[in-house]
Amino acid sequence: MTILAKSSAELSLESVRSLYDQLSVHLKDLSVLQGITRLLFWDQETMMPAKAAPIRAQQLSVLAGLTHEAEISPVLGSLIEEFEKRKLTEDLHKELNPYELANIRLATKAYKEKTLLPIELVKAIATLNSEAVIAWAEARKESDFSKFAPFLEKQIKILRQAASHKIQDRAYAEARKINKKARASLGLKEGEECYKGYYQVLLNTYEAGFKDAHLQVLFADLKKSIIPLIAKIKAKEFHHDRSFIQGDWDIQKQVEFSTRISKEIGFDTEAGRLDVSTHPFSGGAHPTDVRMTTRYIIDNFQEGITGTIHETGHSLYEQGRNKEYDNLPVSQSLSLGIHESQSLLWERMVGLNKPFWTYALPHLKAQFSGSSHENLQSASLEQFYNAFNRVDPGFIRVEADEVTYPLHVILRYEIEKALVEGDISVADVPRIWNAKMKEYLGLDVTEDRLGCLQDIHWAIGYIGYFPTYTLGSIYAVQIFDAAKEAIPNLEDHLAKGEFHVLRHWLNKNIHEQGSLSESGEDLIYNLTGRPLDSSLYLRELTDKYARIYDL
Amino acid sequence: MTILAKSSAELSLESVRSLYDQLSVHLKDLSVLQGITRLLFWDQETMMPAKAAPIRAQQLSVLAGLTHEAEISPVLGSLIEEFEKRKLTEDLHKELNPYELANIRLATKAYKEKTLLPIELVKAIATLNSEAVIAWAEARKESDFSKFAPFLEKQIKILRQAASHKIQDRAYAEARKINKKARASLGLKEGEECYKGYYQVLLNTYEAGFKDAHLQVLFADLKKSIIPLIAKIKAKEFHHDRSFIQGDWDIQKQVEFSTRISKEIGFDTEAGRLDVSTHPFSGGAHPTDVRMTTRYIIDNFQEGITGTIHETGHSLYEQGRNKEYDNLPVSQSLSLGIHESQSLLWERMVGLNKPFWTYALPHLKAQFSGSSHENLQSASLEQFYNAFNRVDPGFIRVEADEVTYPLHVILRYEIEKALVEGDISVADVPRIWNAKMKEYLGLDVTEDRLGCLQDIHWAIGYIGYFPTYTLGSIYAVQIFDAAKEAIPNLEDHLAKGEFHVLRHWLNKNIHEQGSLSESGEDLIYNLTGRPLDSSLYLRELTDKYARIYDL
Repeated sequence: MTILAKSSAELSLESVRSLYDQLSVHLKDLSVLQGITRLLFWDQETMMPAKAAPIRAQQLSVLAGLTHEAEISPVLGSLIEEFEKRKLTEDLHKELNPYELANIRLATKAYKEKTLLPIELVKAIATLNSEAVIAWAEARKESDFSKFAPFLEKQIKILRQAASHKIQDRAYAEARKINKKARASLGLKEGEECYKGYYQVLLNTYEAGFKDAHLQVLFADLKKSIIPLIAKIKAKEFHHDRSFIQGDWDIQKQVEFSTRISKEIGFDTEAGRLDVSTHPFSGGAHPTDVRMTTRYIIDNFQEGITGTIHETGHSLYEQGRNKEYDNLPVSQSLSLGIHESQSLLWERMVGLNKPFWTYALPHLKAQFSGSSHENLQSASLEQFYNAFNRVDPGFIRVEADEVTYPLHVILRYEIEKALVEGDISVADVPRIWNAKMKEYLGLDVTEDRLGCLQDIHWAIGYIGYFPTYTLGSIYAVQIFDAAKEAIPNLEDHLAKGEFHVLRHWLNKNIHEQGSLSESGEDLIYNLTGRPLDSSLYLRELTDKYARIYDL
Repeated sequence: MTILAKSSAELSLESVRSLYDQLSVHLKDLSVLQGITRLLFWDQETMMPAKAAPIRAQQLSVLAGLTHEAEISPVLGSLIEEFEKRKLTEDLHKELNPYELANIRLATKAYKEKTLLPIELVKAIATLNSEAVIAWAEARKESDFSKFAPFLEKQIKILRQAASHKIQDRAYAEARKINKKARASLGLKEGEECYKGYYQVLLNTYEAGFKDAHLQVLFADLKKSIIPLIAKIKAKEFHHDRSFIQGDWDIQKQVEFSTRISKEIGFDTEAGRLDVSTHPFSGGAHPTDVRMTTRYIIDNFQEGITGTIHETGHSLYEQGRNKEYDNLPVSQSLSLGIHESQSLLWERMVGLNKPFWTYALPHLKAQFSGSSHENLQSASLEQFYNAFNRVDPGFIRVEADEVTYPLHVILRYEIEKALVEGDISVADVPRIWNAKMKEYLGLDVTEDRLGCLQDIHWAIGYIGYFPTYTLGSIYAVQIFDAAKEAIPNLEDHLAKGEFHVLRHWLNKNIHEQGSLSESGEDLIYNLTGRPLDSSLYLRELTDKYARIYDL
């Protein structure tokens, strides 16, 4: 256990191989420790009795302290320094394979990021997060933004402070350079800075290597297509019948069906669990211990099923991680956006399409075979498909359909970026939020509870996180497209419930690749030979809903 | 977080109060960390998917390393050293209250014990335990003692080694002195050593402050009375009807009934959980997060109910710990024997007696009201009492009734003590075991699987543990007797289901006392004004079963 080895005097500085082995031991211990924290989080959301909340907070705080100590340990620092030196004098590529080199790269990056921030700032961030989340919960309950505003103000300030420690870093300077296409698309002149760089740093906390300039172009494209698409759908004033989705759906039967589908898609219940929690998530300690949750609603089975498929997609990524580099950084998921691509690929590309329901609908009908479900029994595949793919602009992001969802994200992106770059003030948030909701979705927000107070993210300092949801959906389309090219008759396989064909392809091309690439964009380029862009995503989205709504 | 403070240079050595406060912070962090390990153990036994076993072992190993580091930390050492110095020059009793002084005493003792063993020995013990438990499981499966024997040999050797590091300690030298009564009872002459002292050390790992010489006297008394009692019961060749206990008992209904009883006795489900596991236990992280388990058998409801009541007794001790000294050693349970006294008090003193079933039997009948349970419906309280208190000598300790159980324990005590003191060799174990089973219970052991291979304890180095089961039952009788003296009409309360009266008394007199006393014997003496002895226990046991079996 190198977590026990506190002194760099204990290091043996011989061959590159020996250095790498010592680094591995340390990184594995650290990864094991991080897994414990995630397990405690799962327990907190699913099993923990109410009165244990304070002791759980203490446990997480002690673990955070120990983890931080291992992350910034002098032993780790010495090893990394030694590698930096040898980079100049030795050909590391001869001694180490690309996975091993990636481990060194990722460990170096993580160590630098952890040691960049003064410990006082780390502690201040933790304290602010706990306070802000309480204020936010109260503000949301009372739909009173003024109660949350001072804390959002502090979050912006502290995040800018943290970002400014990183902002001088070469990697970020590089990411801030805007390429020609982006400049043109944004109408910027040569040399003109379109933003001040804080947001780039925050974004990269969640989406490694992704340039905000590229994000801006993507989101501009999306707005250009999706706002008119939604307006057209609204103008139709038409919805397909979905009465057969509503009703009285026995929870236990829903659990059985969701569990069945999750296992058929490939969730290994000997290496994970599916439980219930208020806010569904996929987590757990390790690829052999993936803990995911879902939730069921008695009067509508769609949420239970699609939610379970979504979390199963996340869980397959975790269970499919590279076993050869177990507990090492290269085996970890690449970014939040790529993680989301795996959940959305199964939820939307598979679970919201006809091949999947060709297989699953008869099983769903068999599961709910009683006379009280006659509506469902008589629904055709076409009717079912149309009902599941309803577009319905609403206030709440987590309830949004796949057409309106990106606008919820873009709205948040625009506001949070303007906040951290100092272009708007916190007091402006509700007004701007509501104006954008009107512009993008045609809705009048009447209460901040349903508007800018709905998400927990800003309260816990997750600024730069929202874009990964929509990046995930763009990644998902391009990845699924590559799968269709690579797997003959993929849709026939899905229609027969032969999900392993797709899963194995994802295992090999996404899951086992882990963090070998330096960004989601690189992964997509390596996989598809094309850069990430919005064209395929927008074409498929537009075509699909033009058919469904007969536009 | 002092777990982060590695250097004693960071200590502020001013007042006793300030030293104490610094000690508290360190001890609390350590306690929080230890709670995490217990939570992972619970998860392993109840929730963990099968393939996660290897990563869980790694998690526990990393936590063990971090815990060990905190236990032997130089900061802790400096604080303890400082208190040792001030003991001589300052009147600590003026500055600190008895609970605070107990925290210092317990922390000092734990620190000394942890630092006494060389780290190589600690690691060798951990390695041996993992290997031995695998060998034991295989040996038991094949009922082949020879496969386990080499590992038991190694366990004896390593435990003697560990004990010899402690054996020079003053506290143990004191404990090895045999008092006059013990000498007389054992027929020892003045100056004659009856054993070599290793066992005393091992016993005190589980039962703080208890003298093995006293144990020897107690167990000699028990044998003198219980062996003939069992022989008389066997000679009767009679059993009360228990057909109404057997049958087909819906597991879900058993769960409901056990949960109900557990809550009525006082288990706070907002500060704990009741789940199912193969081997029932009570554990968890903290008094606000107690995790207990039980198991149910479809064709006999007795085990589910009594098992749940037993674990509830343990859990009430945990939930009832002193809140004012939360996460500090004085709030911890005093010893394994006292812990077992709390489970056995509720299981036997309450749950195997008429007042409890006067209340509970009508509820049990209501819970199993179907026509398939006519036998139960027509059972009288007397019949039910007789059936629940059946004496049936068998091979397996964990299935034993309250009369035969102590002999299972004494048999193991005699063998394990002879082993560590070098009086017998490992090869002799099966022969001696079987001879004692014949002598004590009149049974012929045909397979080591049902004999000396049945328990995991020796495989994991738990030598000195078994006696605490029977000490628990002796403590329980004296504690319950004190409760009856203190609470007017206690049995009437129990017959009305008013369990809080007893629970509150136990909270105040046992649970909140924690480790304020230095031993179970001291606690009993302080509580009852009488020393611990076997007389009341044996009288009640003999009287009860003489009535039941009409001896």
